[in-house]
Amino acid sequence: PRIGVCYFPEHWPRERWETDVQQMVEAGIDVVRMAEFSWGRIEPERGEFDFEWLDTAVSLLGDAGIDVVLCTPTATPPKWLVDEHPEILQVEPDGTTREFGSRRHYCFNSGVYREESARIAREMTERYADVDAVVGWQTDNEYGCHETVRCYCEDCAAAFREWCRERYDDVDSLNETWGTAFWSQQHGSFAEVDPPRHTAAEHHPSRLLDYARFATESVVDYNDLQAEIIREANDEWFVTHNFMGHFDTLDSFSVGDSLDFATWDSYPTGFAQDRNTEAVTDDRLRAGDPDQVSLNHDLYRGPDGFWVMEQQPGDVNWPPRCPQPGEGAMRLWAHQAVAHGANVVSYFRWRRCRQGQEQYHAGLRKHDGSPDRGYGDASRAAAEFAELGELDGVDAPVALCFSYEDLWALSEQPHAPEFDYWGLVGSFYRALRARGIQVDVVDVSPGADIHLDGYEAVVAPTVHLADESLAGQFEAYVADGGSLLVGPRTGYKLPGNRLQPDLAPGPFADLVGGRVDQHESLPSSVETRLSYRGEEYGYRTWAEWLAPDGGTAVGEYTTGVAAGRPAILEHAVGDGSVTYCGVWPEEDLADALLVGLLDRADVSHAERFPETVRVTPRDGYVWILNFGADPVDIDVGSEAAWHVGDSSIPGFGVGVVEAGLADVSIT
Amino acid sequence: PRIGVCYFPEHWPRERWETDVQQMVEAGIDVVRMAEFSWGRIEPERGEFDFEWLDTAVSLLGDAGIDVVLCTPTATPPKWLVDEHPEILQVEPDGTTREFGSRRHYCFNSGVYREESARIAREMTERYADVDAVVGWQTDNEYGCHETVRCYCEDCAAAFREWCRERYDDVDSLNETWGTAFWSQQHGSFAEVDPPRHTAAEHHPSRLLDYARFATESVVDYNDLQAEIIREANDEWFVTHNFMGHFDTLDSFSVGDSLDFATWDSYPTGFAQDRNTEAVTDDRLRAGDPDQVSLNHDLYRGPDGFWVMEQQPGDVNWPPRCPQPGEGAMRLWAHQAVAHGANVVSYFRWRRCRQGQEQYHAGLRKHDGSPDRGYGDASRAAAEFAELGELDGVDAPVALCFSYEDLWALSEQPHAPEFDYWGLVGSFYRALRARGIQVDVVDVSPGADIHLDGYEAVVAPTVHLADESLAGQFEAYVADGGSLLVGPRTGYKLPGNRLQPDLAPGPFADLVGGRVDQHESLPSSVETRLSYRGEEYGYRTWAEWLAPDGGTAVGEYTTGVAAGRPAILEHAVGDGSVTYCGVWPEEDLADALLVGLLDRADVSHAERFPETVRVTPRDGYVWILNFGADPVDIDVGSEAAWHVGDSSIPGFGVGVVEAGLADVSIT
Amino acid sequence: PRIGVCYFPEHWPRERWETDVQQMVEAGIDVVRMAEFSWGRIEPERGEFDFEWLDTAVSLLGDAGIDVVLCTPTATPPKWLVDEHPEILQVEPDGTTREFGSRRHYCFNSGVYREESARIAREMTERYADVDAVVGWQTDNEYGCHETVRCYCEDCAAAFREWCRERYDDVDSLNETWGTAFWSQQHGSFAEVDPPRHTAAEHHPSRLLDYARFATESVVDYNDLQAEIIREANDEWFVTHNFMGHFDTLDSFSVGDSLDFATWDSYPTGFAQDRNTEAVTDDRLRAGDPDQVSLNHDLYRGPDGFWVMEQQPGDVNWPPRCPQPGEGAMRLWAHQAVAHGANVVSYFRWRRCRQGQEQYHAGLRKHDGSPDRGYGDASRAAAEFAELGELDGVDAPVALCFSYEDLWALSEQPHAPEFDYWGLVGSFYRALRARGIQVDVVDVSPGADIHLDGYEAVVAPTVHLADESLAGQFEAYVADGGSLLVGPRTGYKLPGNRLQPDLAPGPFADLVGGRVDQHESLPSSVETRLSYRGEEYGYRTWAEWLAPDGGTAVGEYTTGVAAGRPAILEHAVGDGSVTYCGVWPEEDLADALLVGLLDRADVSHAERFPETVRVTPRDGYVWILNFGADPVDIDVGSEAAWHVGDSSIPGFGVGVVEAGLADVSIT
Ligand SMILES: [Mg+2]
Ligand SMILES: [Mg+2]
Ligand SMILES: [Mg+2]
Ligand SMILES: [Zn+2]
Ligand SMILES: [Zn+2]
Ligand SMILES: [Zn+2]
Repeated sequence: PRIGVCYFPEHWPRERWETDVQQMVEAGIDVVRMAEFSWGRIEPERGEFDFEWLDTAVSLLGDAGIDVVLCTPTATPPKWLVDEHPEILQVEPDGTTREFGSRRHYCFNSGVYREESARIAREMTERYADVDAVVGWQTDNEYGCHETVRCYCEDCAAAFREWCRERYDDVDSLNETWGTAFWSQQHGSFAEVDPPRHTAAEHHPSRLLDYARFATESVVDYNDLQAEIIREANDEWFVTHNFMGHFDTLDSFSVGDSLDFATWDSYPTGFAQDRNTEAVTDDRLRAGDPDQVSLNHDLYRGPDGFWVMEQQPGDVNWPPRCPQPGEGAMRLWAHQAVAHGANVVSYFRWRRCRQGQEQYHAGLRKHDGSPDRGYGDASRAAAEFAELGELDGVDAPVALCFSYEDLWALSEQPHAPEFDYWGLVGSFYRALRARGIQVDVVDVSPGADIHLDGYEAVVAPTVHLADESLAGQFEAYVADGGSLLVGPRTGYKLPGNRLQPDLAPGPFADLVGGRVDQHESLPSSVETRLSYRGEEYGYRTWAEWLAPDGGTAVGEYTTGVAAGRPAILEHAVGDGSVTYCGVWPEEDLADALLVGLLDRADVSHAERFPETVRVTPRDGYVWILNFGADPVDIDVGSEAAWHVGDSSIPGFGVGVVEAGLADVSIT
Repeated sequence: PRIGVCYFPEHWPRERWETDVQQMVEAGIDVVRMAEFSWGRIEPERGEFDFEWLDTAVSLLGDAGIDVVLCTPTATPPKWLVDEHPEILQVEPDGTTREFGSRRHYCFNSGVYREESARIAREMTERYADVDAVVGWQTDNEYGCHETVRCYCEDCAAAFREWCRERYDDVDSLNETWGTAFWSQQHGSFAEVDPPRHTAAEHHPSRLLDYARFATESVVDYNDLQAEIIREANDEWFVTHNFMGHFDTLDSFSVGDSLDFATWDSYPTGFAQDRNTEAVTDDRLRAGDPDQVSLNHDLYRGPDGFWVMEQQPGDVNWPPRCPQPGEGAMRLWAHQAVAHGANVVSYFRWRRCRQGQEQYHAGLRKHDGSPDRGYGDASRAAAEFAELGELDGVDAPVALCFSYEDLWALSEQPHAPEFDYWGLVGSFYRALRARGIQVDVVDVSPGADIHLDGYEAVVAPTVHLADESLAGQFEAYVADGGSLLVGPRTGYKLPGNRLQPDLAPGPFADLVGGRVDQHESLPSSVETRLSYRGEEYGYRTWAEWLAPDGGTAVGEYTTGVAAGRPAILEHAVGDGSVTYCGVWPEEDLADALLVGLLDRADVSHAERFPETVRVTPRDGYVWILNFGADPVDIDVGSEAAWHVGDSSIPGFGVGVVEAGLADVSIT
Repeated sequence: PRIGVCYFPEHWPRERWETDVQQMVEAGIDVVRMAEFSWGRIEPERGEFDFEWLDTAVSLLGDAGIDVVLCTPTATPPKWLVDEHPEILQVEPDGTTREFGSRRHYCFNSGVYREESARIAREMTERYADVDAVVGWQTDNEYGCHETVRCYCEDCAAAFREWCRERYDDVDSLNETWGTAFWSQQHGSFAEVDPPRHTAAEHHPSRLLDYARFATESVVDYNDLQAEIIREANDEWFVTHNFMGHFDTLDSFSVGDSLDFATWDSYPTGFAQDRNTEAVTDDRLRAGDPDQVSLNHDLYRGPDGFWVMEQQPGDVNWPPRCPQPGEGAMRLWAHQAVAHGANVVSYFRWRRCRQGQEQYHAGLRKHDGSPDRGYGDASRAAAEFAELGELDGVDAPVALCFSYEDLWALSEQPHAPEFDYWGLVGSFYRALRARGIQVDVVDVSPGADIHLDGYEAVVAPTVHLADESLAGQFEAYVADGGSLLVGPRTGYKLPGNRLQPDLAPGPFADLVGGRVDQHESLPSSVETRLSYRGEEYGYRTWAEWLAPDGGTAVGEYTTGVAAGRPAILEHAVGDGSVTYCGVWPEEDLADALLVGLLDRADVSHAERFPETVRVTPRDGYVWILNFGADPVDIDVGSEAAWHVGDSSIPGFGVGVVEAGLADVSIT
């Protein structure tokens, strides 16, 4: 694993660059990303290009032995281009234009902007096609940031109509799939189909879901265009994109199909504040929620691993509040990423910027050029990674099922303000991580070709949209001896976002051995408990009253109108077994369910660690990562070889030891 | 009383319909409503009609002896019509168009849409004019749902100018009535008058109130157009409309003038969550707030009773959360409606829909066709109602005064976030219901011709807008021996929403025997108490310092700057008496005031029941309705004849007994 | 000091006016303001003027010996003018027009509206040029109320481009000052510069700050136009404007440059509710937060004092809630204003209005003409002020630094929802007032020419935007023997809203003897404490880890990641000394810091008074002002001469005594 950094030479005087590169080398930095947002600098007026500065920077870095990743600068079309073609701007559902003045103001379906993007991408990639220092490209930057995946302009309306025509071929098929007999929403032709703009009441959920699919595919098409141009210029380059964390509107599996590997941008103390359904504890304010962060590592990890393209370097400007991270947290995050399979951890940014929207965003160096808190952490991580050398990829025994389409469908019809797809998935994921289990995230959206064979156990927090084909793949896995845990709201809907003809879980009913008799959502003021195998546990927000049919009720409600009704089923199928859990489980229930699953599947696991301590195996090592302010003492036996740290892990500290997962415990 | 259901055959295969009808007959269902929202199915393209499906459904139901109520499908103009005439769409105050994609997207003042509505209404009503099974019509559906009474388009601007010309004749009269000398808001001609679109600061309250009146009258005109067409086709049909609960922007008294009787749509567990100023207790989550529901029964009840056109059938999709109702709650609600005078209780809907916006809204049958929780409840209620037979109407000893115009005026100038017209009215109403009193709701808006003579007592939570004529009607009632209780903010304003020339209560001052010296509104953090006839009580939000003039101070503030000042007056006038209460009373004070009133008026009442138990007399019976999860034991003497249930009322259960109201108590 | 009142004869019948004037005389009212908002009455149609009513009113008042202040009526252009020229209307960032129907609907940069304003101002001023009773003019009314300083229309776009051209001369200078290399925000010409309209993400902070400057200067230009016309008509008239309290978007120092003195509109119980970051206690609900009010007195006070042009007269209609003020509070506020240097306290309004948006706003008389609560208070204050006679101006030993530009810059990048410029300034100000210190508010925005020489001590809660010249003025003050206290976030930014090249406090680093190593913002859930000179204290929201360089650390963090790091520095410089406080101090810390400062500066101060009691010296007297409901006993020695009241100050009462500040204490 290697350390990288994001660098903006165009923000600093030319005289400084040698110093910067030298300090990077001293820190052990091997990779530098540049040129995102540089369009206005590269092409100050139409057709007038200035590459000299970038040539120089690339060559200084190359001379120092640093790999350069360049970016297409399309996330920020310059003002002269917007003034020439205001029609490239995005439009909101109520008709408001998103004007120039920040970033991501362009529409993915603008024909004009696609041409302009191709033009600048060709200029850049052709220029550096033969430059050895340049090893690959990032397309654009954080597609969809600031809720920009979905646009409602006329270009999008036309593209959506065409998309519907391709998907449904004839309009009756669309009407049938969506179910437009409801509220007289029939379409007489594809020309009648519009984006879901501002309406008096809520939209048809099928129209919304297809618009979400269309929007993500608009990004896929746009990205493909860039990937192709990059590869045309030099087919040895890798192509990647930097995704975001816990991001809703873009299906990263789909975009990923045309990338060599994925990268993402990790800001633990920000995410703990602005996209976590749980409270921000003091420790999370200082080092983030470890499971929230690593769920994204696992989500973006592919066969060839992944990169953290932007790693939080210190305090950042955009969350509600900007705490200083704990002492050493920037090193901790790098180690966590590597434990989850990262090949490169690249800090954002080299030096705190003195201008524009991100002035209060830390870098590895302060804005006066002196080292910031992250510089020492990054240097230390670089040295430790060099010591560890090349590592095998992550070998995960458990698959965690995930689907952006389920996320979208459930977000449209959550039935409780607290219902949250990431939160539900996170509850199962956190229980796995507390036991030290490595997890592969598997796409189970409709039409996905899922490969579960290699996994000892499979956890599906929900598989909301489903057809027989999808359910069949799960059945085959279980029949073949697999161990499966399935969560609530599974099998409710057809892929078109209509209810199944049968009661939930629809095509999964035979597999789980029962059906959903009733469902309900409840506020937190109501007592919500159940008994499972003799113990009482809590659940939250969502409950299903189950009717076993083949399966055995192993959990039963003990509170409310539901009291006495089945809540959890177990079902032996072929050589395997399935547990169906009809609620969103609280932490203890999630642990109990998972330990049951892992034991049945014979998966070795650790003792249950507190939420601030995570143990993570990779390539014969176990990383012990302390996300709390208090030190932790670890017992791995006196023989164990410590490669980083030792058995006393300080607050926000790390240890790496050769050991088996089950051998690690807190003393 | 009879049981009905709302049925959408167009959402299900033709082959199923016989089964549906047979299951309705088995449940004892006598009435079926159909065809609301069916425009797109009836007229898929302009001028191409398809009535065959509806003919068939009507005839299947008619053959089974079921009465059919049809609806004009105008709440959902189809897409081809919107594309032809986008000018029919509503526009918001800031100019945003409400697009196609949900429902209620049309403007009531669109000339084009009025023509189109008349055209489709004529097509439908002429087709079924001679079909015996069809007994009456519902116009449109839930006028104004999703805040669509008030539109701000150019058609509305023109119509508002015309409305002002008709109301005021010359523009100086408008200027004088509104008081436009304030902030230079004079109009030089009616052509200068606009709808109250988006402004920098708040609008002139007189303009707002007149726009609210104009908007409600636009609906009245639109509804009249439909009612006339229906009666032209068959003048034996009844015409009704389904109103909503606790609905602000539409004056149901005015719309009701052209209906044969009113119906409304009752969703107790939803209303308890989304339109109740009080907290959602566990019991309210399961069965609703009984007084919130029955206030609407009483509001919509006319000389010929009323219907519940849509009765909640189980869990519903649209409130913040979707709890399962308590066991038996669907039967409880039907009984409550009948106790308050309903002739028909019609559940919404027959079967859970598999498509569109309401997929998660329960029906009497599940979406796979099997019986849902409500089916048993509905069947049981049907059998019990058949047993009870024809019932006399409700005979209410007390009138409760209500005015949509007061509601609008007070909503524009509430003077505290907590001030809420429904809440204030509800405080007095709840106290009456806790004592088992049946109540008629009487329109006391300016210009109303109120008939108070028949009532033993009258409760006016407020009569905010008033002129001498209105006050005179109250005076006559009291002088003639009536007992009147009047609440705060009475008589402040002229009908034009200007302050009276005199101090409040303006034209009521002689009647109540005093004036308002000062008023204030206060947050809940401040202690707000008063003494009334020797006891201390709490009040909330609003307080008036009274200056008696003829009346006697019987209540006095004990806290805050107000301490020592009069808060409640009593005044003997002619053969009657008046109590004026200058505060929004908390529950104990409301009870004390009402018991005083009822005793003076010699109205028999029950002991004070807890808020989850309601006793309600009709036609010699008393309904005991348990809205709590815990059972309740009732004492009515051993002789009393129980027609439904017995003296042990289970949680969410019902008893019907022949008894006098005052004889019923909790043991 | 004198008492005045705001009078709207146009709202009342002609027959009443003599009575009004007579009652004013009886109350001791010396000054009357009229004619704001009167355009529609003066010019009902274009070119048709009606001044007769105003002539009469002026002459009735003049005959009674009352001074008349007239207003240009430009805050409310009448409807006929808006219909003629809809382009004068303001436009919001998303393109929504602010329509006619409230007030302040015009754009300051509309050429048409400037001409119209000049036309009506000339008509009015020429008419009254020779009328002796008219002593001066108020321009317009409350510039910017309802967030109307900043408009985003095409006129504003053009004016902003021109403003940028004048400020920067060439566009490269703008690009460099703003730092537009960030996110490709370069401008190729001034024609490319737009107002900061609606964007997907946040705006460039430098563009935002310049737009804030431009908008305030648009008001300055607009006001200058009016001031010039007024002086052309009669150069003996004074020209003033009525500012608002705690108002963000308008730089009152800049507008003030063309006024003879400032006036402002003081509504204590409203401000305590709607613009105070602290909780509304019962006492504040009744009499306001004394320090919040008097900070505005001090802010608007100039060499010739100031007026309160609108003084709250009783309950008001616009805050969240409308409590009755405490008994005597209207007199208390008048005394407080005078203690802080007011020459006139003018109540708003004479009589409660019966029409329009402010019907529920009290006056000195009720709407039926009878005296309201404020009438007695005003009369009593008038008599007491007559008794006290002419007073010397306020002699403040301490300067408090303030900058609207800092306010704007920090509002754009607060880094915590709780961070608030007024709140930070208020913490230091409250500590000064608790010790009875009189304060001058000094403009320290970039480019200001600050005169600190006369002050014993200077408190700068923050000086966020700064250049060497500004810092140099502080350095000179300290070197010369001054005592300076500086708060956090000082010296971070260049005037262009870019970070300084050096670490904070940038150009202040030498002066304070250290730099900011790190900063952080924290939620209130985190423990935030520090030790200062041996005691523990709390801070909130913002913390800086300091690196002393010449200065001495006298405060150190004791909690969180910061524990052990320096938080407060002291530095002796030349003949003076500086304290730098890197946090937003809680009350006890603010007091400790200020007592240290005052002692070093040898400034006499009172004991620390509770927050409801304020002692305020002026011209040899000390005002003791009781903002609490409970009475307070004061010890000033038995010799002291009481001119108003005595040593027992009732709740909401006042005493005026000849004494030294340090001699006053609570017994
Ligand atoms: Mg997919
Ligand atoms: Mg009416
Ligand atoms: Mg300035
Ligand atoms: Zn678009
Ligand atoms: Zn309209
Ligand atoms: Zn403008």
